[in-house]
Amino acid sequence: MRWALEEAGLAYEEMLIGPEDQKSDSYRRMQPFGQVPVYEEDGLVLFESGAILLHIAERSEVLLPSEPHARARAKTWVFAALNSIEPHVQNYTSLDLFFAKEEWAKLRRPSALETVQGRLESLARWMEGREYLEERFTAGDLMMTTVLRILRHTDVLTKIPVLEAYRLRCEARPAFQKALAAQMAPFAKNAPAGK
Amino acid sequence: MRWALEEAGLAYEEMLIGPEDQKSDSYRRMQPFGQVPVYEEDGLVLFESGAILLHIAERSEVLLPSEPHARARAKTWVFAALNSIEPHVQNYTSLDLFFAKEEWAKLRRPSALETVQGRLESLARWMEGREYLEERFTAGDLMMTTVLRILRHTDVLTKIPVLEAYRLRCEARPAFQKALAAQMAPFAKNAPAGK
Repeated sequence: MRWALEEAGLAYEEMLIGPEDQKSDSYRRMQPFGQVPVYEEDGLVLFESGAILLHIAERSEVLLPSEPHARARAKTWVFAALNSIEPHVQNYTSLDLFFAKEEWAKLRRPSALETVQGRLESLARWMEGREYLEERFTAGDLMMTTVLRILRHTDVLTKIPVLEAYRLRCEARPAFQKALAAQMAPFAKNAPAGK
Repeated sequence: MRWALEEAGLAYEEMLIGPEDQKSDSYRRMQPFGQVPVYEEDGLVLFESGAILLHIAERSEVLLPSEPHARARAKTWVFAALNSIEPHVQNYTSLDLFFAKEEWAKLRRPSALETVQGRLESLARWMEGREYLEERFTAGDLMMTTVLRILRHTDVLTKIPVLEAYRLRCEARPAFQKALAAQMAPFAKNAPAGK
């Protein structure tokens, strides 16, 4: 969300919340599943990263070309990142993140890895000879990069150089760097004592 | 996709493909992951059900209210269906559909069920006292119903009456019934001999 706002050149204010807020009735009225982020603007409340990204992108030529076909294609890639890639990435990375001690997670690992690799290889074939998913950077690349970087602590992406190069190309954008620094700042500020 | 086209009152032609088509280079140029459906219109090629739905919905007041806040909220629910509900539904139903003989799938079942139930209970809390996700039926309900009905062969949804009633309310729409009949027709026509 921060990256999209930086690309679009829109000012924003952050409001940090904690696990107790996420369970509260007042938060659930804004986000029925208790997740982050929530986006507020002039009385409009949105949730879901994809919906928030499209909402911001609709005000930015950087994120969504005004030409109708190119605009529709950019949106297609937002959905592709969220629905054809992310679920398989999450299924694989969740094995270590949430289920490391579970016997089923050990047995599941090979097939989960094979599935995510298959999707990434299909994406890599598409990316051959391209710098971005379409003619130029769009909201589709922003979302795809956001999904791919979930794998940055693994060797899954580094084994597919065309995708690793693509991820780094998108992350080199000044708007990404600015958003990442802003995202990390509260973690540094609120680090536990002695760390 | 058919349901959206029927709600929007747009004519369409179907083109059936087979597993060999899905693997072909020419199909992969339209759908990089080899999946269905693909949508073609005046030289524009789109994939991803969510993207195709939004593209169709943008031409239909039935699917997307023109009032900007209501429009953005409807889109939020399309993403919520696809990203906060569907991955967990798929993780649960895939255990029987694709991994029934796997030891890990047996061990995984309780936690997969718990996760999908948790998401559905959050959705049920939202739906209390409502007929639709927002003030009236939108593309968000179309996508949510499409996701919920993946569970129709299980007892997961019937155990949450507010959601089962919601699914049936949406499926009672004439456009859904017409789309479902059109979807099933080729299966009947191409049924294996002796069945």
